[in-house]
Amino acid sequence: MKIAVLPGDGIGPEIVAEAVKVLEVLGLGLEMESAPVGGAAYEAAGHPLPEATLKLARESDAILFGAVGDWKYDTLDRPLRPEQAILGLRKALGLFANFRPAICYEQLVGASSLKPELVAGLDILIIRELTGDIYFGQPRGRRTAEDGPFPGSEEAFDTMRYSRPEIERIARVAFEAARKRNKKVTSVDKANVLETFQFWKDVVTEVHKDYPDVQLEHMYVDNAAMQLVKAPKAFDVIVTGNMFGDILSDEASMLTGSIGMLPSASLNDRKQGLYEPSHGSAPDIAGKGVANPLATILSAAMMLRFSLGQAEAADRIEAAVKAVLAQGLRTPDIWSEGTTKVGTQQMGDAVVNAL
Amino acid sequence: MKIAVLPGDGIGPEIVAEAVKVLEVLGLGLEMESAPVGGAAYEAAGHPLPEATLKLARESDAILFGAVGDWKYDTLDRPLRPEQAILGLRKALGLFANFRPAICYEQLVGASSLKPELVAGLDILIIRELTGDIYFGQPRGRRTAEDGPFPGSEEAFDTMRYSRPEIERIARVAFEAARKRNKKVTSVDKANVLETFQFWKDVVTEVHKDYPDVQLEHMYVDNAAMQLVKAPKAFDVIVTGNMFGDILSDEASMLTGSIGMLPSASLNDRKQGLYEPSHGSAPDIAGKGVANPLATILSAAMMLRFSLGQAEAADRIEAAVKAVLAQGLRTPDIWSEGTTKVGTQQMGDAVVNAL
Ligand SMILES: CC(C)[C@H](C(=O)O)[C@@H](O)C(=O)O
Ligand SMILES: CC(C)[C@H](C(=O)O)[C@@H](O)C(=O)O
Repeated sequence: MKIAVLPGDGIGPEIVAEAVKVLEVLGLGLEMESAPVGGAAYEAAGHPLPEATLKLARESDAILFGAVGDWKYDTLDRPLRPEQAILGLRKALGLFANFRPAICYEQLVGASSLKPELVAGLDILIIRELTGDIYFGQPRGRRTAEDGPFPGSEEAFDTMRYSRPEIERIARVAFEAARKRNKKVTSVDKANVLETFQFWKDVVTEVHKDYPDVQLEHMYVDNAAMQLVKAPKAFDVIVTGNMFGDILSDEASMLTGSIGMLPSASLNDRKQGLYEPSHGSAPDIAGKGVANPLATILSAAMMLRFSLGQAEAADRIEAAVKAVLAQGLRTPDIWSEGTTKVGTQQMGDAVVNAL
Repeated sequence: MKIAVLPGDGIGPEIVAEAVKVLEVLGLGLEMESAPVGGAAYEAAGHPLPEATLKLARESDAILFGAVGDWKYDTLDRPLRPEQAILGLRKALGLFANFRPAICYEQLVGASSLKPELVAGLDILIIRELTGDIYFGQPRGRRTAEDGPFPGSEEAFDTMRYSRPEIERIARVAFEAARKRNKKVTSVDKANVLETFQFWKDVVTEVHKDYPDVQLEHMYVDNAAMQLVKAPKAFDVIVTGNMFGDILSDEASMLTGSIGMLPSASLNDRKQGLYEPSHGSAPDIAGKGVANPLATILSAAMMLRFSLGQAEAADRIEAAVKAVLAQGLRTPDIWSEGTTKVGTQQMGDAVVNAL
């Protein structure tokens, strides 16, 4: 079993190092190989996703990814910016199914912006389509406007699109996931305005016929953004497109107050996957040894379960994370009065000890 | 001064009736004429925006709008559905500038999902571009896919687009509004992925040169969805496109806990405007006399200020609304222990009395 380790930028290297430490101590004989990605790769090799890194990723069973991005690359041409690495990996490997759990940890209820009763026990799963939609649709660019209120002026444009099989496969992923949970799927669309999402709604409804044991509800994206704030626990599985999923999954993670704790997985149809924390590269705290490594460690657990067939080892990591929280250990992002503040490495060491 | 009164569906007629009552008592000699819109118009005239309604709207200085929509119209063909009326009015009248204040009323802090300290005193203004973007871009429809992972399959698509003058004029509206407030504009984009929003960011940055006294910050839409939850008071004016604005303005209204209190205005370059509550048609409570009319009454105040040059009368209405809240009167949506529950008409009467 081969793992591509891509630490990236900002706090990426620090948090990935802790996850690697945890994986090593399990003694599963995993072959891990590192390569640069994002801004670090641009500096080392002139491109955010160098050919060698992509080759390593393709040949691996799974990718353990840190984070990419830093203000200092903002002035680069778009194709050279760090985030192109993540878009490039998703597309090249066909990682169409993004799993983003939004869980509120019992001990961290107080860290949420929301009132405790609204988030205590929260456990929702956002499934975001990751290789279609307006992210990759062609054509796109600049041109002279032919319609709109100012024909003849300069305009920029993009294409939103989804084909039937792309919607079918992500809908199946959502219904299958709901079967293992509370058997409810909320499909988020904007069918009242967009052709793409009327089609999305139609196709999801057709696929649902194969899953009569799962409840399906449709919700407009603007309403979903409200209901997540009003009553997040009313959701079980949310399935949506790439653009709406980008917005809603970040909103949902922040609601939990535990964004430093939330892992994510992006899978293709061969169960090859990219695993990364839901949070970003946080360049402002990079190198200070204070970043929370738990989202990355939990991403490694998801990797063991989804791509490497090691569910038992995954369970062990998750139990160890719960144990360190119960011990009262907290990195600064989740620290509160009465708990013990620890740094990145101490937190990683504590998980290793709990194993 | 002529006002088109379009009550629409669900609770629309009840709440608009209260706003009309308030306007009449001011004795400004306003000429008010009603017409059907939305589902009500479909039933009366076979179309959600009949020619006569559109004509009335065009000839009026302002439109007082209730709400449209009901589950029972979900099976109609898209062009006949109630929400086409609102899209049609926006486009026909060129109502490109949507003002959506998100205010947390002192007495209603407890109604928010968020912890009181995060929303007490919240006063942000979302300015959403309303006639461009993927809402109206052409081409759109269904076709056979030429690219994407499944060429040859059926697909649906839409076009996102913005021209330079469309971005310039909404940016100016935002900077002007910020000048009268806390002098900060957050422009929300997705420049890291979309050509349209890289252009948006570039043009907003150019327009900003004319407003050196206003601070401009750029934020990705996914991050904005998070920051609204984490620290909403850090915003002053948010300006964004039609699609992102739809999502973020609803998220922000719900954060306040006062969505039944929030008005909105949609203006064109001649200051002609459509005024409506931020909430929807709530068919589940229609006809029960329990809907909160205050958002509509406050929309009428915005109308007086923005389209009819009656700032003083607008101030009077706003003061009257504050007075009834101070009296402890509450419709069920904002009721809490220790306050007095009233119905739609009683609330309208109380505002009239306070005037
Ligand atoms: C960095 C960016 C391109 C990316 C996205 O929009 O998909 C990020 O926000 C994410 O959600 O992984
Ligand atoms: C009804 C719908 C077309 C509309 C929109 O998406 O603009 C609504 O959500 C709004 O925000 O006014």
